[in-house]
Amino acid sequence: MKAKRSPFAILLLLSFLSISTAATTRKIQTRKPCKSMVFYFHDIIYNGKNAKNATSAIVGSPQWGNKTILAGQNHFGDLVVFDDPITLDNNLHSNPVGRAQGFYLYDKKEIFTAWLGFSFVFNSTRHKGSINFAGADPLMNKTRDISVIGGTGDFFMARGVATLMTDAFEGEVYFRLRTDIKLYECW
Amino acid sequence: MKAKRSPFAILLLLSFLSISTAATTRKIQTRKPCKSMVFYFHDIIYNGKNAKNATSAIVGSPQWGNKTILAGQNHFGDLVVFDDPITLDNNLHSNPVGRAQGFYLYDKKEIFTAWLGFSFVFNSTRHKGSINFAGADPLMNKTRDISVIGGTGDFFMARGVATLMTDAFEGEVYFRLRTDIKLYECW
Amino acid sequence: MKAKRSPFAILLLLSFLSISTAATTRKIQTRKPCKSMVFYFHDIIYNGKNAKNATSAIVGSPQWGNKTILAGQNHFGDLVVFDDPITLDNNLHSNPVGRAQGFYLYDKKEIFTAWLGFSFVFNSTRHKGSINFAGADPLMNKTRDISVIGGTGDFFMARGVATLMTDAFEGEVYFRLRTDIKLYECW
Repeated sequence: MKAKRSPFAILLLLSFLSISTAATTRKIQTRKPCKSMVFYFHDIIYNGKNAKNATSAIVGSPQWGNKTILAGQNHFGDLVVFDDPITLDNNLHSNPVGRAQGFYLYDKKEIFTAWLGFSFVFNSTRHKGSINFAGADPLMNKTRDISVIGGTGDFFMARGVATLMTDAFEGEVYFRLRTDIKLYECW
Repeated sequence: MKAKRSPFAILLLLSFLSISTAATTRKIQTRKPCKSMVFYFHDIIYNGKNAKNATSAIVGSPQWGNKTILAGQNHFGDLVVFDDPITLDNNLHSNPVGRAQGFYLYDKKEIFTAWLGFSFVFNSTRHKGSINFAGADPLMNKTRDISVIGGTGDFFMARGVATLMTDAFEGEVYFRLRTDIKLYECW
Repeated sequence: MKAKRSPFAILLLLSFLSISTAATTRKIQTRKPCKSMVFYFHDIIYNGKNAKNATSAIVGSPQWGNKTILAGQNHFGDLVVFDDPITLDNNLHSNPVGRAQGFYLYDKKEIFTAWLGFSFVFNSTRHKGSINFAGADPLMNKTRDISVIGGTGDFFMARGVATLMTDAFEGEVYFRLRTDIKLYECW
């Protein structure tokens, strides 16, 4: 009887090991994304002359700054509000699939570095809902990771990481960010 | 012996199926909230004449704006800091159960749209702790969803979705938001 | 045979109870942190005379404020961008292990209260990656909790709670915050 019981015992042991692992570490976290997407968004900052095309504007600045020219000292303290078109490829004139909306602020005097709080807002046949982001953007690095802190609609309760890459920039007026979104919590 | 073993085998199989599901999808995510709450909060924006009653103030604005009148182009670029009373019903004069504190910014030139980063801060016999929110608020929609990105105290580690509804507004000075909070992660 | 089966039956029952608990509540959430860390960060606000040492600057203010002096009414409406050194002990001159980057805003007229959105950015042999924070900081309280809303690199997908304590302050120019980070979701 003993010899026959052992496969059960082993299975049960394995089973309990799995469960108790889950109980203490709470989950088995694989770093395989449950959803991956790539988007581009395009920012044209207001400089006093481009009211028609501008998609963003300086709304806060340090004492040494103003609202139409990014401040000295690597724009430290400039706060920018944006409503940028999101496209599937790197062409500014492609049909937008949503809007990137929120703010960024430059937060280092010695080099360009920013902090972002924004959403991707979708309302198309392809996607409905929003993805919310926050995090540091040391924008001189080729790639930098920010957090997907939540989502709604198609992206209900999403969490993940988004990798930003500066795909292009033109002086201090235009930049384009490639955004590789990888969700690790999908509902 | 075989016939007798099978119930075990089935149970074990089921057991392993459950565990391995948990292991690959990480969790069984039901969209049934673990906690639901409804609150109202009330925003009276400073316009230069209502210092006593105002609960919020413009602190950033685009080049074409100022600090006492919401800017043209659907207030694009206006950044508002607030400390608004939270009530259980839609009466501004009801006893507040907490404060909604943080900021919103208007971020679209063509229509009214905002982005919110704020907390509900409770310190009463009913609730202690805070709920943190972030997300896009396309405020012309009847309902819009933002993310509950975290919580502390009674709302330790909370995640969920909050549905905002404009319950009332008076010109550009007062608005009241109904907030239906549904938490899907409770600890 | 019956008597012999019972230990299995009990184990299986226990096993199923555990699994079904996990299925309905989604996870077994212990409040035991999977990672605990303590850091200090140091904020020196720009006052018009300390450009060299300042690590932060007022970039938004209410109508009654300006960019070099924190506003009346408990600084309500002042928005500050910062790039503060992080140290392992409470000495401003210790070797920084990273930077705290982001913003805080004062959001109550009656007492000092702030709202924070920022990241700890590490790039050392000890830690690589970032931790993202958001939440209300009622800074007159001895301790206050904010949320860890995400992380990248070594802190991939982190969630948790950070307890802030004002470790020192000098007038309105310098403050030092002790930050006890407890992560409850580690990957």
